[in-house]
Amino acid sequence: MPLMKAAVFVEPGRIELQDKPIPDVGPNDALVRITTTTTICGTDVHILKGEYPVAPGLTIGHEPVGIIEKLGSNVQGYREGQRVIAGAICPSFTSYACQDGYPSQDGGCACHGYKPMGGWRFGNSIDGTQAEYVLVPDAQANLAPVPDGLSDEEVLMCPDIMSTGFAGAEAANLRIGDIVAVFAQGPIGLCATAGARLRGAGTIIAIDGVNERLEIARRLGADVTLNFREVDVVEEILKLTGGRGVDASIEALGTQTTFESALRVLKPGGTLSSLGVYSSDLTIPLGAFHAGLGDNRIVTSLCPGGKERMRRLLNVVASGRVDLKPLVTHQYRLDDIVAAYDLFAHQRDGVLKVAIKP
Amino acid sequence: MPLMKAAVFVEPGRIELQDKPIPDVGPNDALVRITTTTTICGTDVHILKGEYPVAPGLTIGHEPVGIIEKLGSNVQGYREGQRVIAGAICPSFTSYACQDGYPSQDGGCACHGYKPMGGWRFGNSIDGTQAEYVLVPDAQANLAPVPDGLSDEEVLMCPDIMSTGFAGAEAANLRIGDIVAVFAQGPIGLCATAGARLRGAGTIIAIDGVNERLEIARRLGADVTLNFREVDVVEEILKLTGGRGVDASIEALGTQTTFESALRVLKPGGTLSSLGVYSSDLTIPLGAFHAGLGDNRIVTSLCPGGKERMRRLLNVVASGRVDLKPLVTHQYRLDDIVAAYDLFAHQRDGVLKVAIKP
Amino acid sequence: MPLMKAAVFVEPGRIELQDKPIPDVGPNDALVRITTTTTICGTDVHILKGEYPVAPGLTIGHEPVGIIEKLGSNVQGYREGQRVIAGAICPSFTSYACQDGYPSQDGGCACHGYKPMGGWRFGNSIDGTQAEYVLVPDAQANLAPVPDGLSDEEVLMCPDIMSTGFAGAEAANLRIGDIVAVFAQGPIGLCATAGARLRGAGTIIAIDGVNERLEIARRLGADVTLNFREVDVVEEILKLTGGRGVDASIEALGTQTTFESALRVLKPGGTLSSLGVYSSDLTIPLGAFHAGLGDNRIVTSLCPGGKERMRRLLNVVASGRVDLKPLVTHQYRLDDIVAAYDLFAHQRDGVLKVAIKP
Amino acid sequence: MPLMKAAVFVEPGRIELQDKPIPDVGPNDALVRITTTTTICGTDVHILKGEYPVAPGLTIGHEPVGIIEKLGSNVQGYREGQRVIAGAICPSFTSYACQDGYPSQDGGCACHGYKPMGGWRFGNSIDGTQAEYVLVPDAQANLAPVPDGLSDEEVLMCPDIMSTGFAGAEAANLRIGDIVAVFAQGPIGLCATAGARLRGAGTIIAIDGVNERLEIARRLGADVTLNFREVDVVEEILKLTGGRGVDASIEALGTQTTFESALRVLKPGGTLSSLGVYSSDLTIPLGAFHAGLGDNRIVTSLCPGGKERMRRLLNVVASGRVDLKPLVTHQYRLDDIVAAYDLFAHQRDGVLKVAIKP
Repeated sequence: MPLMKAAVFVEPGRIELQDKPIPDVGPNDALVRITTTTTICGTDVHILKGEYPVAPGLTIGHEPVGIIEKLGSNVQGYREGQRVIAGAICPSFTSYACQDGYPSQDGGCACHGYKPMGGWRFGNSIDGTQAEYVLVPDAQANLAPVPDGLSDEEVLMCPDIMSTGFAGAEAANLRIGDIVAVFAQGPIGLCATAGARLRGAGTIIAIDGVNERLEIARRLGADVTLNFREVDVVEEILKLTGGRGVDASIEALGTQTTFESALRVLKPGGTLSSLGVYSSDLTIPLGAFHAGLGDNRIVTSLCPGGKERMRRLLNVVASGRVDLKPLVTHQYRLDDIVAAYDLFAHQRDGVLKVAIKP
Repeated sequence: MPLMKAAVFVEPGRIELQDKPIPDVGPNDALVRITTTTTICGTDVHILKGEYPVAPGLTIGHEPVGIIEKLGSNVQGYREGQRVIAGAICPSFTSYACQDGYPSQDGGCACHGYKPMGGWRFGNSIDGTQAEYVLVPDAQANLAPVPDGLSDEEVLMCPDIMSTGFAGAEAANLRIGDIVAVFAQGPIGLCATAGARLRGAGTIIAIDGVNERLEIARRLGADVTLNFREVDVVEEILKLTGGRGVDASIEALGTQTTFESALRVLKPGGTLSSLGVYSSDLTIPLGAFHAGLGDNRIVTSLCPGGKERMRRLLNVVASGRVDLKPLVTHQYRLDDIVAAYDLFAHQRDGVLKVAIKP
Repeated sequence: MPLMKAAVFVEPGRIELQDKPIPDVGPNDALVRITTTTTICGTDVHILKGEYPVAPGLTIGHEPVGIIEKLGSNVQGYREGQRVIAGAICPSFTSYACQDGYPSQDGGCACHGYKPMGGWRFGNSIDGTQAEYVLVPDAQANLAPVPDGLSDEEVLMCPDIMSTGFAGAEAANLRIGDIVAVFAQGPIGLCATAGARLRGAGTIIAIDGVNERLEIARRLGADVTLNFREVDVVEEILKLTGGRGVDASIEALGTQTTFESALRVLKPGGTLSSLGVYSSDLTIPLGAFHAGLGDNRIVTSLCPGGKERMRRLLNVVASGRVDLKPLVTHQYRLDDIVAAYDLFAHQRDGVLKVAIKP
Repeated sequence: MPLMKAAVFVEPGRIELQDKPIPDVGPNDALVRITTTTTICGTDVHILKGEYPVAPGLTIGHEPVGIIEKLGSNVQGYREGQRVIAGAICPSFTSYACQDGYPSQDGGCACHGYKPMGGWRFGNSIDGTQAEYVLVPDAQANLAPVPDGLSDEEVLMCPDIMSTGFAGAEAANLRIGDIVAVFAQGPIGLCATAGARLRGAGTIIAIDGVNERLEIARRLGADVTLNFREVDVVEEILKLTGGRGVDASIEALGTQTTFESALRVLKPGGTLSSLGVYSSDLTIPLGAFHAGLGDNRIVTSLCPGGKERMRRLLNVVASGRVDLKPLVTHQYRLDDIVAAYDLFAHQRDGVLKVAIKP
């Protein structure tokens, strides 16, 4: 039985590189040899710390860029040796939730087909992508060929943070000329800023506490940047909009402060598009919510997956609309992944995203 | 100067019938002689109690059914003597907020055109409808002729609770065959139930603590009724849906309990449509919110107004689609309005809505 | 090799009952024993006449009601012996077109995943349902369990005409109180009328040339019926709406006359929702199209399929919202299907739909 | 009675500069002194030729940039001397059509409030903008202040062609990464190309017969340009998309050829967004329409107006998102307007748009 290297969750605080068998390929699967897998995602750090529980022995990671090694007997229209990505969210597309428009909440054949975050399988409910090989389930629905001429580095944001960040802009339902505020400029927030620009927002206000990130936000499309360590962000945005408020705000961190600020800066009728992963109950202040009478919306999104989503994102990259390469600040070999986790978990050295290569 | 009777807010705890001058008619106004004005709305009780502040001396009430007495010089296409209603929300339709799709948040020419609940003028920022006459501002946009053959009783829910309740069903974005839960079956909730039926929901679950209200809910379209005094509503709804949850829930009361329950019964991907007027901060429980990753929406709506909205609602009544007459449980003369307030504020005698006639 | 009876297209003008092998079951398939299959659809008559070409030897029919006989090895969450339906349109849900929101245009792994009407497979590209058994492909996505207590007759409209007719109302984007005209009251048009009622239309105008059909239209929700043999329909509708026109019109026949009339009665801003299968080029009259400046929409829909769509429709039937049993005017045994085709193709004896039982 | 110069339609073939009285200002009006009025629009040429009938004596033109000279007594929130634009379409915003979401089809108080193109008043039903002064009706709804620092040349596309072209992209319902084809690259088509870019299209294919226009299309966002004199456009687009077709096509000319090509290149499920003003009946080819079963949409749009629309467009200009100055190829004084008409009507000298200054 041939073996491969894989980054495995052992116990809280410990992820190790281990040898595991290269998986068998069922009729609807594809085996992909990983050439680059970006990561480490914030979620992976939660897993490492034991804050988000996964089964011991699971391979971690959910952002695959690679080459088809072997196709299942029912998978058609691809060829072995083809370069592909797959979404971090990897739904079956056959369940009730998927047909209902919520593939990211795919419950498979159980629970009437719905399960919160159920479409997220890599590194969560099945072995992930921080390995030499990954088995892609429901491959017919999830393998997305990479257009010729694009490098691994150019496409490795597509599976997760580009899809997520853009989804935040899409769910904000922006119109041409809208004013939007994006709270937090980590990798997801930066992609939300780029997404807001792509949707035609007229004024994009980016907020963070790190000036280097605000600088990248400007390059990706922000018109105004605010450092929350220097100004009262809510006050400043209301001033910038003459008291009107923004058409939409995007929350990209997952804290009460950013959520609440995102609500306070909204015009009556405005939309709060939330991307953050929260870790405690949230409070909606009565005033910011206009007692429930402000015609406002709070919308949450989980990263969209599937090969059609990936195809569109790859097209955006191929057309040169957005350049997310500045987000890849570090490169590591898979053999050194423990060190990469250490860097990322402690957010040292201005790290945004780390590319891991087997 | 001719006088009229009007129910006037004097001070917290005191509304009185007083003589006031019949107002002058400006070029964009219409003077309407009130034939019936439904009320008393829950909001009026808040005003009476001093919980929602209005200027002393203001005439209260916001649901007019009457006859055009006099038209302003710029108002065209109507005739004096014509029977009309106007929405409780009475926007200018010319401000930025109105053109932006949020007429209920009309800020006029101030505040960049947005003001939370600014479209609500009758009995809030201008004299209201619990009087012999009311001056309708921006009459060209707000006067809606009543089709022949409809009685005052049949149309007096259109200006406020029918428009509001239906808006709750509309904002829930229901599809044919959806499962929806409506929390609280007061007048607004009952209209939301009727609205959900009109939009094609396949299963409507109505919740309240009063069996008489649940009985009316059944007549207006509920398939299942749950008395929260008898069962654990959240548990029961999850059981009814096999653990899947509902496609949408409508909150029609304005409390933490109903808001939170409405969230807990949602499927991933589901929408909480909120109609209630809240009186304190709200808490979003982390689990019910799937940590922000459930593709859920929370949407709030204020009663839509304007003559086009009224025209559609009147058409629904004229076609016999919905019969809301059972909601009018009591009739009072304007002279006895203080007694009517007393009845309604204490929710005696199974009161749902009171019709007041000058 | 066990055999079954099947209605097979032999050559233009000839459909025969033949013995064919009961099909083998692949890993993603299900074999369903047919208990009732409604039909004959107008499309089947086109096939019979050779107007729509299919391969000689193909089993015809696309509306299955039956019992699971055997499940493929990958199909989970069902059991053999379970009563199910499947949509007339039976998509893979994994192709680009499916993930893009157009499963009825499913091109599988070819043509970049899009093929006009490609989701229609039964009796078109694979063996159909007018047989003792049918093989359902991509069964995980397409088998919809029938709720207890519903008869075959109550659910046999779900796979095709109910889904199609309702889609016409859904694509018309109706709002509560809208005025809608439905052109032609054959089975599809009658379902569109029922669908318009379900979506909250305030005034439904049904048009046909057969008074018996108009009578059924009234029972399904029409407020006004017009016989085009007796009145000038366009003129009458404009009169009924005071010259304004309707908010939406639904075309349910597939001729230039109905298409053009449906356009002529629209208000500026109105939507023409087209369901008909046309057999020649269409002309858009310049005036009815306001020279392209009327903010109008022409929208076409093919029957939506998939188990989630079927689940919603079955819920509507189970809740008693709509009773389509009056549409089944005749019953035949599969052995007599040639006679049933003869009756239906000549539209004798007031036939609307024929139920065929093996 | 003070006089002003105005370009007046006299009879087919003749537009003259005449002296007319400066108009009186009613309570809801504003008098604007024109500083620049772009023109001449293709519609104006239709008027000149007598193809589109207007009343003899009418002042022509509908794209105002100017300074408030005098405000009506009811118009609030503006000041005399303020620099403003108003939309070419100048609706009341109070009629049924306006409240229904179709202000461009504003019928005022007549015809139930709808009239095809009724929102277009300047140079159509009231005196237009090719004059020293123009009276803006319903000024509260239509005056849009110009942000400081923007020149007349930078904003003079907002009232008409920018609003129209962007509307074509908006009605196409583009998503991030979509493929779109824009047929014809005159001023409207160029703005549609810019609008498609603003909405996030991943691949924009611009089609025209003039290479200079295709060159400008590239600068405004086109990825691929096709000269219909050199290639078979339909064949080429199908080849470029691997036979899939485009997600949306935008028609910006108003001929059978462009309309039909725009339909033939669509994927099943795709949208044809039509902006052109047609001058004869249109034919929908059966095959390109998939016999009515392709889940396709044909959508028409008239230029959106109103101060909120103008505010958003001005914000786009102020943020530097789009630079439409290259479209202004010629400048004329109002005194020379007859010569400007001559140039534009004959499309000499590579003219795109002519700026006219009093």
